[in-house]
Amino acid sequence: MAVNLSSPDPKTLLPVAGVELGVAMAGVKQADRRDLLLIRLAPGASVAGVFTRNRFCAAPVILARRHLAEARGMRALVVNTGNANAGTGDDGLARAGSVCEGVAKALGCAVQQVLPFSTGVIMEPLPIERLLAALPAAVTDLRAENWAFAAEAIMTTDTVAKAVSRRVRLAAGEATVTGIAKGAGMIRPDMATMLGFVATDARVPQEALERLALEAAGRSFNRITVDGDTSTNDSFVVMASGAGPAAATDLDLAALGGALNEVSTLLAQAIVRDGEGATKFITVRCEGGLNSDECLRVAYAIAHSPLVKTAFFASDPNLGRILAAIGNAGIADLDAGKVDLYLDDVLVASKGSRHPAYREEQGQAALRKAEFTVRAVLNRGPASETVWTCDLSFDYVKINAAYRT
Amino acid sequence: MAVNLSSPDPKTLLPVAGVELGVAMAGVKQADRRDLLLIRLAPGASVAGVFTRNRFCAAPVILARRHLAEARGMRALVVNTGNANAGTGDDGLARAGSVCEGVAKALGCAVQQVLPFSTGVIMEPLPIERLLAALPAAVTDLRAENWAFAAEAIMTTDTVAKAVSRRVRLAAGEATVTGIAKGAGMIRPDMATMLGFVATDARVPQEALERLALEAAGRSFNRITVDGDTSTNDSFVVMASGAGPAAATDLDLAALGGALNEVSTLLAQAIVRDGEGATKFITVRCEGGLNSDECLRVAYAIAHSPLVKTAFFASDPNLGRILAAIGNAGIADLDAGKVDLYLDDVLVASKGSRHPAYREEQGQAALRKAEFTVRAVLNRGPASETVWTCDLSFDYVKINAAYRT
Repeated sequence: MAVNLSSPDPKTLLPVAGVELGVAMAGVKQADRRDLLLIRLAPGASVAGVFTRNRFCAAPVILARRHLAEARGMRALVVNTGNANAGTGDDGLARAGSVCEGVAKALGCAVQQVLPFSTGVIMEPLPIERLLAALPAAVTDLRAENWAFAAEAIMTTDTVAKAVSRRVRLAAGEATVTGIAKGAGMIRPDMATMLGFVATDARVPQEALERLALEAAGRSFNRITVDGDTSTNDSFVVMASGAGPAAATDLDLAALGGALNEVSTLLAQAIVRDGEGATKFITVRCEGGLNSDECLRVAYAIAHSPLVKTAFFASDPNLGRILAAIGNAGIADLDAGKVDLYLDDVLVASKGSRHPAYREEQGQAALRKAEFTVRAVLNRGPASETVWTCDLSFDYVKINAAYRT
Repeated sequence: MAVNLSSPDPKTLLPVAGVELGVAMAGVKQADRRDLLLIRLAPGASVAGVFTRNRFCAAPVILARRHLAEARGMRALVVNTGNANAGTGDDGLARAGSVCEGVAKALGCAVQQVLPFSTGVIMEPLPIERLLAALPAAVTDLRAENWAFAAEAIMTTDTVAKAVSRRVRLAAGEATVTGIAKGAGMIRPDMATMLGFVATDARVPQEALERLALEAAGRSFNRITVDGDTSTNDSFVVMASGAGPAAATDLDLAALGGALNEVSTLLAQAIVRDGEGATKFITVRCEGGLNSDECLRVAYAIAHSPLVKTAFFASDPNLGRILAAIGNAGIADLDAGKVDLYLDDVLVASKGSRHPAYREEQGQAALRKAEFTVRAVLNRGPASETVWTCDLSFDYVKINAAYRT
């Protein structure tokens, strides 16, 4: 199950000047599917990446980080699905390096100008011969109109391809932002797991792009949870080809940042919507906190609680479970007697106890919907934060218990 | 389902001199079941308590803490099942106070010498009339041999009563330790949730008893997890009646502490074994950490991961999920390339990658058992810690989704 929006119409995806994409069938894990994606960037492009904090991070993550630190002027990204090249030690690093070398040779750039990404099963050796053999076909296929095929080529267990485009007006002209992502909810370290690639034709200084990438990741991919597990391969990359208008002023950067945030948020939400077993898409908002950190603690305490998530699955407005989760968020001086709780617009608990006028049918009506908002108001400060999650269903256990057997 | 040991034979439960127990049927939630427990302590007894850290703690928890801070010479504990008196605000505090007053009058002591405890459904008013009406029957029933009935009277959704006795030799003679607990795995804040009462006839100074209680809780009830949720009512109380031998020396206190730890650990494990949906009882051990804190982080990261727990349910030796959980434990400088992982005695991963000699059948054989040990060795320090958990099964979702509907 899933709470997907409809798949993106390929015709609505906007090409990004200075960014070409080519896909090919390498047969990494199965035959007859596009599983290799090559992205070529125009000379002078800026690239910024945000990567998993998991200490068991995958070989391509280590190498991509290293290349970004060593070199400027990235020219290519190479992505395979079917194999995550994670838990593979030094041999995995060497294999990721070989793929980068192949791309560098094919495109005529330095090996450090190539960033590698892998997703799929972990602890299996990456089949580099097959990837290198398919590379010429991907090079031949390079074109700016290939975003929809690219979104499909990075899927693993996703049930829909995830892609979004936006236009944004800068002082020097209109810029385009197009992004793709894959992931069925961070719930599969085996299919290690979340990848996001967003490109714009705007010209953005490196430092500014790094700031925008961090901010976009923080407001999107770092605000979703299916089950609290973080994969070994999570990567989010923002590319600015520079073939379009310059983002020269603070105003331009703010406008571009807004578009990047919007594209990233829609992609991140698409991952939660596609979470295995998901039957509900839930926005969890915490308001009135002292600071952003404690709002996130509360929001994630609710979004991670298996008890809350099974109650959501059952459309059961189980206030006790939500309040107990808030109480467990680790805020030592939280005054429970000040907390208000809303399910959509229904005030279900006020000052820490059930609201006298609240009737259970109201809560049930809210939770029966496929999408709803849980809002906890701490009434102790000005900060607020939002995260997105899904429910915990029979199918979650079924899929994850059955996955390898 | 559950991974229970056989229920305690009432004949094996040892009475504790200076501690009498009486049970009665108050009809709190349902008729014809023992749901009220009164414990009377001999004058001069010491009592120490450890309580939930949930900020939405229940009225009886607030009052029990207050009484312990205000008074010495506790004379009674009063426990009801069927209603947790949680999420009930000032009215709940007043009701808990009324019950204590009733007990104080019946036993001829001060109200501050009575500690109240409640477990059961939350956000419902505590029916004090019924409790007070049943109190005389509980007083009449007071006797030292009542531990098995007491264990039964505090059950909510437990499938077995939980009780353990031990004897321990002190310099001045043999002391007895008997304890009871309830809880089906902390997975039901609705049935809020874990209670543990352990009594000894040894004479123990107040400060020493508080230290022993903290230590015993730390090594037992604070080392178990079913789903990471902490209830609003969790309470653990150690009573030392003083009717038996004095624990006078450090050696005595160490011996008594050992017995308290053993009884508490067996009771805590009994809660995990009785966890709803549990089909496996799993010991998670982290060794070779720099300190206790990081070992606990790693152990809980494994024990809390829904992905790891569903894999255990499926008897699937999914090394990637376990290693990814270790990588997510929040140890910033963890060297993944040093980590070894064992399933029971099988070395499945060494230096962060699959061990070359490991065969999947070995891991499956370990995980097919109803009880096994997962051991992560960080190889960076002298510390180690152990926690206990269960798997995540279809029945967990079924029970918790269906609970109120």
